Amino acid sequence: MRLKLLIAYDGAPFRGWQSQTTGDAVQDHIEQAFTRLCGHRIVVHGAGRTDAGVHAHGQIAHADIAADTLPFDKWLPALNAHLPRQIRIMRITRPPADFHARFAARGKIYTYRIWNDVVLPPHELGRAWHFTHPIALPLLADCARMVQGTHDFAGFAANLGKTERDTTRTLSEVRIRKTGPLLTLRFHGDGFLYKMVRLLTGTLIRCAEGRADPAWITELLTACGRKKTSFAAPAPGLYLTRVLY
Amino acid sequence: MRLKLLIAYDGAPFRGWQSQTTGDAVQDHIEQAFTRLCGHRIVVHGAGRTDAGVHAHGQIAHADIAADTLPFDKWLPALNAHLPRQIRIMRITRPPADFHARFAARGKIYTYRIWNDVVLPPHELGRAWHFTHPIALPLLADCARMVQGTHDFAGFAANLGKTERDTTRTLSEVRIRKTGPLLTLRFHGDGFLYKMVRLLTGTLIRCAEGRADPAWITELLTACGRKKTSFAAPAPGLYLTRVLY
Repeated sequence: MRLKLLIAYDGAPFRGWQSQTTGDAVQDHIEQAFTRLCGHRIVVHGAGRTDAGVHAHGQIAHADIAADTLPFDKWLPALNAHLPRQIRIMRITRPPADFHARFAARGKIYTYRIWNDVVLPPHELGRAWHFTHPIALPLLADCARMVQGTHDFAGFAANLGKTERDTTRTLSEVRIRKTGPLLTLRFHGDGFLYKMVRLLTGTLIRCAEGRADPAWITELLTACGRKKTSFAAPAPGLYLTRVLY
Repeated sequence: MRLKLLIAYDGAPFRGWQSQTTGDAVQDHIEQAFTRLCGHRIVVHGAGRTDAGVHAHGQIAHADIAADTLPFDKWLPALNAHLPRQIRIMRITRPPADFHARFAARGKIYTYRIWNDVVLPPHELGRAWHFTHPIALPLLADCARMVQGTHDFAGFAANLGKTERDTTRTLSEVRIRKTGPLLTLRFHGDGFLYKMVRLLTGTLIRCAEGRADPAWITELLTACGRKKTSFAAPAPGLYLTRVLY
């Protein structure tokens, strides 16, 4: 029986989503919880491989378990009882038999949070990028419009050799919201390269604070990876908000 | 020269506001920061003595320092540089010479946060009371109306001997808001007895989940302390939101 899990986690205590030999990735903890309940190793397939320190409100994963292991409604409390409190299974459903958390995903939404003020309030510690320089919002909006659409994002990716060969992605929207000192950038795309959201955010902010020319963004988008940005916004500001199927 | 400080803190790492012999209260940390900058002991007077684990977005304190210690605009960064990141001075102003953070306060606003759902998402860990039983909102609103107004709140206080003799207070409003699973109770009063907000919240919720008769609230309000409630909501859900002058 296949289970579809909606997962939330605080990224701070873990070495990212993807299983590590050290066993301290989010995937490891969830697999260990399943393994304890099932008595044998269970593999959990996640939709997105978030980096160390990156948070998730809406990670999706699937796992296959023997139907007679537990009554369906016991899985949620049983898994959570075996997980650290910084990882919570928020909901479990039964997807179609051929559902695959990663391959069935049509897109994702990532949110990047920036606290743009002199002092970072304690409740934002580890949850936002504390950025004290002024950010020009109209300029940020212009830059965000430049990266929207279908582009070769190789200039906004790290470790490309290890991941996809096709580096063309479609960002259907980069939505910017400002509420007091809190600036959020919401990226809705059909897929994301490694570190793409953090590199996009870092580079957009670099331009919007006046320290880089927005024309550089066009260069990065048209150079097919021959030019690359290295301005990655820090991991703790990033959230995997939703996986779209 | 008197400084008025607006202070925010995460209550989790500290033993409350008030100075402890162990030196790990919020007041201790701020006094230590001043002392380092001034070279001699400085006393900081806070408006409200929050308990261990209770948070603050809007604590107010004052301190007297020699006018030539530092230029006025250096105090904010200098103090924050000497404080743990879970304590932040958010703003410093120069009040009238006779301003007293505690005695000049005309009232306070406390907010209590309850996460009323089966699973507590990781980002609410230590920031809300995780309450899984259903809460009847109309009943909660009725109970909240009962405690509004001027009453002897001795039945909703702990350790009275050590604090005020006059236990009459005016709660001008108890505002209830529900946004998804997040239930907030906002208490606006002219003053609060020790543990009063947590005892009010615990008792209101006890009634609103149907485990106590709301008539009990009337008894508690009219018994002048001869009857007392012991249902205190846990500290990590409570926030000192604002001090009113």
